[in-house]
This record gives sequence, structure tokens and C-alpha cells, in this order.
Amino acid sequence: MTTDALVLDAAAQDLLFREARTANTFSDEPVSDEQIQAIYNLVKFGPTAFNQQPLRVVLVRSAEGRERLLQHMADGNKAKTAAAPLVAVLAVDNEFHEELPNQLPHFPQAKDMFFSERPVREASAVMNGALQAGYFIIGVRAAGLAAGPMTGYNAEGINKEFFGDGEHSVLAVVNIGKPGEAAWFDRSPRLSYDEVVTTV
Amino acid sequence: MTTDALVLDAAAQDLLFREARTANTFSDEPVSDEQIQAIYNLVKFGPTAFNQQPLRVVLVRSAEGRERLLQHMADGNKAKTAAAPLVAVLAVDNEFHEELPNQLPHFPQAKDMFFSERPVREASAVMNGALQAGYFIIGVRAAGLAAGPMTGYNAEGINKEFFGDGEHSVLAVVNIGKPGEAAWFDRSPRLSYDEVVTTV
Repeated sequence: MTTDALVLDAAAQDLLFREARTANTFSDEPVSDEQIQAIYNLVKFGPTAFNQQPLRVVLVRSAEGRERLLQHMADGNKAKTAAAPLVAVLAVDNEFHEELPNQLPHFPQAKDMFFSERPVREASAVMNGALQAGYFIIGVRAAGLAAGPMTGYNAEGINKEFFGDGEHSVLAVVNIGKPGEAAWFDRSPRLSYDEVVTTV
Repeated sequence: MTTDALVLDAAAQDLLFREARTANTFSDEPVSDEQIQAIYNLVKFGPTAFNQQPLRVVLVRSAEGRERLLQHMADGNKAKTAAAPLVAVLAVDNEFHEELPNQLPHFPQAKDMFFSERPVREASAVMNGALQAGYFIIGVRAAGLAAGPMTGYNAEGINKEFFGDGEHSVLAVVNIGKPGEAAWFDRSPRLSYDEVVTTV
């Protein structure tokens, strides 16, 4: 009843938020590189602080890659991660500041003014990488696909397995595909507007 | 050229990502509570880990509230924060786990299994709160409004000024309204697909 206050049409609202759900089962339909390219080339425009872009994505396509990933997943996540048409490891590059002068050409000194300390970079990477991960999930839905983001895994194991340079931190592992049978649980409750929003 | 791979129509892609920009000036047109309610009631469905919902929003509407906020903003952000039709302080509640059993009714023990330690909760709140902040920014755009998210402020000052309980941490301050004259800089570069996405 409040959707009249939005400009985005109702079908798009449904596609991205209201009918989109975290999927736990998937059909066999493959997910193409062209779909992931279209998703990235849309959501790359989402805003971050200082236009930093710490997000990195590893698409796990080979059988060998899938095995390397599965050994680090929590037991409850192994079966669906094994069965999903495509799995994406979302991580952040904690050395994102090295490329910042290219991405913020009107303020290249931001790199040294704000990001010379590794703990500051790590905190910034996880916050802005999570923003980018949120945009990525919306993008998966914009492609008519379901996302199944997971955080149940051995993070250190994944970092070593897929990056190995000590400079990357996994944020989430996301199953991607068309939803299968009984793909989701009932929708869990959300906090009401009045529980979240106050006015001063 | 890759948009054919998406289901979301091109106008919605433009509205949410391609033509939407971080605004630095705004028109005088007010932003209503009904618009913010519609935004929240759409984006509340965005997924988070364990369905946690740490995000809290303080709408700064009164002149007194605006003054309380401005004193903590970085000098370069004061003028636009003073002029925006509406300003939203986005923060996280680090004690979000207390309400988790209501939000995850099929797994209420998650509260104690995963979130009994404050440092773990803080890390989870910032990551999942940032996901929710990303959804909120997309929602502002879905309402046909421009968002101007900022992280240049005295965070401790804002935490004490608007929460004061030691349990909340500001994530971003977001100016909201219709864009004004010369509202944005040229678009800064984004990393290419091949710089971000690899395949194994």
C-alpha cells in the first residue's frame, strides 16, 4: 500500500526485493559468463566511500574448483554448494588503496591520507565490500536468477585456497541459479518501520 | 550491450544504477515520511546472514536535530548536510542479537551459538548493516530520489549525540532529496569485469 510512493515499477520491486528469496535448491539451467558480465557491468556503478572498489569475485566453474571450495564449507552448506549451477566467492582486496588514485582522479591523495594503515583499510574494505556485495546480490536478481549467500565456511581456509597472498578476505559465498523445488523456507519476520526508524 | 542478459528493464537499470548518482546539491522539494516508509518496507526484504537486522535509521527533520548533527560533520560535508531536504543517520545496533530469536524462528539458538561475544557481534553488525545500507540506498533511488552518502564525520560524536547507550555505531550519513543544480561530479572510473572477476 506504500508502493505508490516509489517510482520503480511494482514488477521490478517484486523481482529485486518482494518476491526474490534466498534459494537453497536450484534447477539444472546453467548460468553463463554473459549473465555475470551483465550483472557486474550494472552494479559496478553502486556508490562506495571514495569510490573504492575492494570487491573481488571468483567464479567456481570447474569440478576441481568446486572440490577445492567444498572442503572449506560448513557441513550444512556442502550439498547446496555442490549442486548450484554456479558458485561465486565474494572477497575483498585489502590492498584496494593501491588502485585508488585511478578511481578517484580528482582526489588521488586520499590513498595516503586515509588508507596508509592496514587495519583502517581492512575495516573500510569489509564495509564497502559489503555494500558492493549487496549491489551484486541485487544484480543477480536483476538477471532473473536466485542468489543463495552463505557465511558458513572456514574463512581462513578459503582465503588461503583461492588467494594465498594474505591480502584478500572472503565476505560471502553465493550460490547462483534458477530456483529448484522447495527452494526456500517461509519468509522470516522483518523489523517494522517503527522499530528501525526514529525522527529527531 | 550486455543488458540483454538481464530481466530487469532498462529504465529500472538506469534509475537504480546507471543514471543514479551521488548528489552533492539538492532542490527544495521535501522528502515525506511516506516515501521513507515505502523505501523501508521494500528494502527490508534484502537478505542478511541469519536474517539479522542491525540497521537503524535516524531521520533528522528538526532544525535542532540538524544543528546537533552538523557539529560532528567534517567541514567539507557541513554545507550540503545543512541544505539537504532530509538527512538520515544510518547506524547499527550492536545488540541486534537480542531480537534474533524473533527474526529467525526456525533457529533461535543462533543467538547464543554465534553472537554471545561482543566483538563477533560488532563485526557481524557492520558487515550486515552495510548490506542493509546498500539496499537502503537502492531504495532511495527506487523512490526517484538521489542519495548522498557520507562517511566524513566524527563517528564517536554522532554515536554519543544520537544514541548515547554505547550500543550503536554510525555507518554513514545520507543526504536525501531531488538533485539540485550541478549536483554531481563527472562519473569516476570503475574497475573492469576482468579486473574484478576470475574463474577457477
